Amino acid sequence: MACTIQKAEALDGTRVMQIIWHDEEESLYPAVWLRDNCPCSDCYLDSAKARKLLVEALDVNIGIKGLTFDRKKCQYWGSELQLPTLDFEDVLRYDEHAYKWLSTLKKVGIVRLTGASDKPGEVSKLGKRIGFLYLTFYGHTWQVQDKIDANNVAYTTGKLSFHTDYPALHHPPGVQLLHCIKQTVTGGDSEIVDGFNVCQKLKKNNPQAFQILSSTFVDFTDIGVDYCDFSVQSKHKIIELDDKGQVVRINFNNATRDTVFDVPVERVQPFYAALKEFIDLMNSEESKFTFKMNPGDVITFDNWRLLHGRRSYEAGTEISRHLEGAYADWDVVMSRLRILRQRVENGN
Amino acid sequence: MACTIQKAEALDGTRVMQIIWHDEEESLYPAVWLRDNCPCSDCYLDSAKARKLLVEALDVNIGIKGLTFDRKKCQYWGSELQLPTLDFEDVLRYDEHAYKWLSTLKKVGIVRLTGASDKPGEVSKLGKRIGFLYLTFYGHTWQVQDKIDANNVAYTTGKLSFHTDYPALHHPPGVQLLHCIKQTVTGGDSEIVDGFNVCQKLKKNNPQAFQILSSTFVDFTDIGVDYCDFSVQSKHKIIELDDKGQVVRINFNNATRDTVFDVPVERVQPFYAALKEFIDLMNSEESKFTFKMNPGDVITFDNWRLLHGRRSYEAGTEISRHLEGAYADWDVVMSRLRILRQRVENGN
Repeated sequence: MACTIQKAEALDGTRVMQIIWHDEEESLYPAVWLRDNCPCSDCYLDSAKARKLLVEALDVNIGIKGLTFDRKKCQYWGSELQLPTLDFEDVLRYDEHAYKWLSTLKKVGIVRLTGASDKPGEVSKLGKRIGFLYLTFYGHTWQVQDKIDANNVAYTTGKLSFHTDYPALHHPPGVQLLHCIKQTVTGGDSEIVDGFNVCQKLKKNNPQAFQILSSTFVDFTDIGVDYCDFSVQSKHKIIELDDKGQVVRINFNNATRDTVFDVPVERVQPFYAALKEFIDLMNSEESKFTFKMNPGDVITFDNWRLLHGRRSYEAGTEISRHLEGAYADWDVVMSRLRILRQRVENGN
Repeated sequence: MACTIQKAEALDGTRVMQIIWHDEEESLYPAVWLRDNCPCSDCYLDSAKARKLLVEALDVNIGIKGLTFDRKKCQYWGSELQLPTLDFEDVLRYDEHAYKWLSTLKKVGIVRLTGASDKPGEVSKLGKRIGFLYLTFYGHTWQVQDKIDANNVAYTTGKLSFHTDYPALHHPPGVQLLHCIKQTVTGGDSEIVDGFNVCQKLKKNNPQAFQILSSTFVDFTDIGVDYCDFSVQSKHKIIELDDKGQVVRINFNNATRDTVFDVPVERVQPFYAALKEFIDLMNSEESKFTFKMNPGDVITFDNWRLLHGRRSYEAGTEISRHLEGAYADWDVVMSRLRILRQRVENGN
């Protein structure tokens, strides 16, 4: 999930571009070679896989004016997000649209699909489109609505602060699908934040808080009855890094964070202080993106990267808001993405 | 999964037992206190939760003769294994037997259940007993037998060397269930080895090999069609350690190890040498345990800890050997174990 390029800079009086990859390796690209190999349609004939640009037209003393990241693997965002949106039926029907859906999901972390029905069953169709859904103790799919004796805080009308789903599992769901069947007028807006982006800010603003959250094991618990009875416990670092120090997953849900906290007593208060810094950064206006789902909308998002929340809404005698949700595993999603990429690129 | 006790030793002229826990913490237990608190039925009346041993009978100069590990969490084993065996129907029917099943599975890594039928459907009953099975691209359950154009080496009559199942997934199945429906007379014996035990030996005999296998990322791949079409790729360290350096999972299947091997060229030969050391240790007579499954037997084992294999058998015109298999997730198994423990201990 991590970005491949760590840093890009113009060196040697702008004549050379230096790339530092995420594994600290360095590559150097002379500006003249980059100009010579421009892949745009003015400079390159794709059907012939051949260069159109003439040496006559080449400025051999060309320099680099500026560098813009086109983060292929991972585009970080804040409140400026343009929510990527595709048509639900197109995604089911056409491989090009399904490929666009999953590749954008991987890159941006969220895609909204519009034009689904306002009946249950739509997330199951998406599960079939990918391969299959990820079954948990909450069932193959689950109904987010106000319930009596709710076995999960999501099944109330209360505010849900930023969280990832299901850190009580050691392998939390990679991708979440949420289909709006009914929407209330009195609140219930959705809030999302790019966890990887917020981690980057936290690491810069408060390296110590980042260090604490990426090294402290936190207990999560979830006990109840749904698909069957369950008693789940896990330990996770809230910010999970890979061997190279790149953030690969956020594990955080304040509702299921356990009372048990297995750390030396002197580390408790600094942990809470670090967590508050992280949450405050998420809640800052420039980090979060707010929108409201309409019946027929499905949001599909990276549950290892995004944190999501919901504004409270008024409880009534009738169910005024109803989402149907489901999970998919990243390995299953990536498998479908590989197959679609090959099919779309080979044009069959 | 890791053992809690790292080392136990008698100190101070045998008067004190020193325990080094897996987190490097030390505890000291005077021999006289241990003697005073012996929990056996001669020394302790369990119904009254009271000491029977008299001070008159206490040798205040008692020393420690020897120390034997009763690894509660994890009993390592080699060829001397006494294969834990329970009755299939008892496990389905009685909570005490189901608790014994799952707690032994956690501790020893394998339990054989006998007395199942010789018809498909028995592993699904165990899945229901736990909660639910772990669906993969090979289906809810899968049939291990000789198949034309096999999409997996398991579906042939050939020898299967020691492997864990499905390292091509980033979250390989935690627990494997294998039910023998039909068994051939001409081979097909099962071989198992305690991967955590072999790791401990490797670390002692060849620390460099251990270091290489616990730090090198290896690519795995699996492409084909079964439950649906799939194209799966992963990276794993063959010996996976937690933050404290304890082995938590073995990820190894030579059949699905990718041709792609993303390491600097000078590390390739040393990697193969380390891998061969590891495999040779597994194949040593003192490490492995060999047995033959009979129709109606189900073996249930820790796929993160054990490696398993099969001797080849003669192909015929008819199917001479047939196992039905399935997977379960450790979080689901541990959830059931917690619920059963509470029920059995509270006697309701």
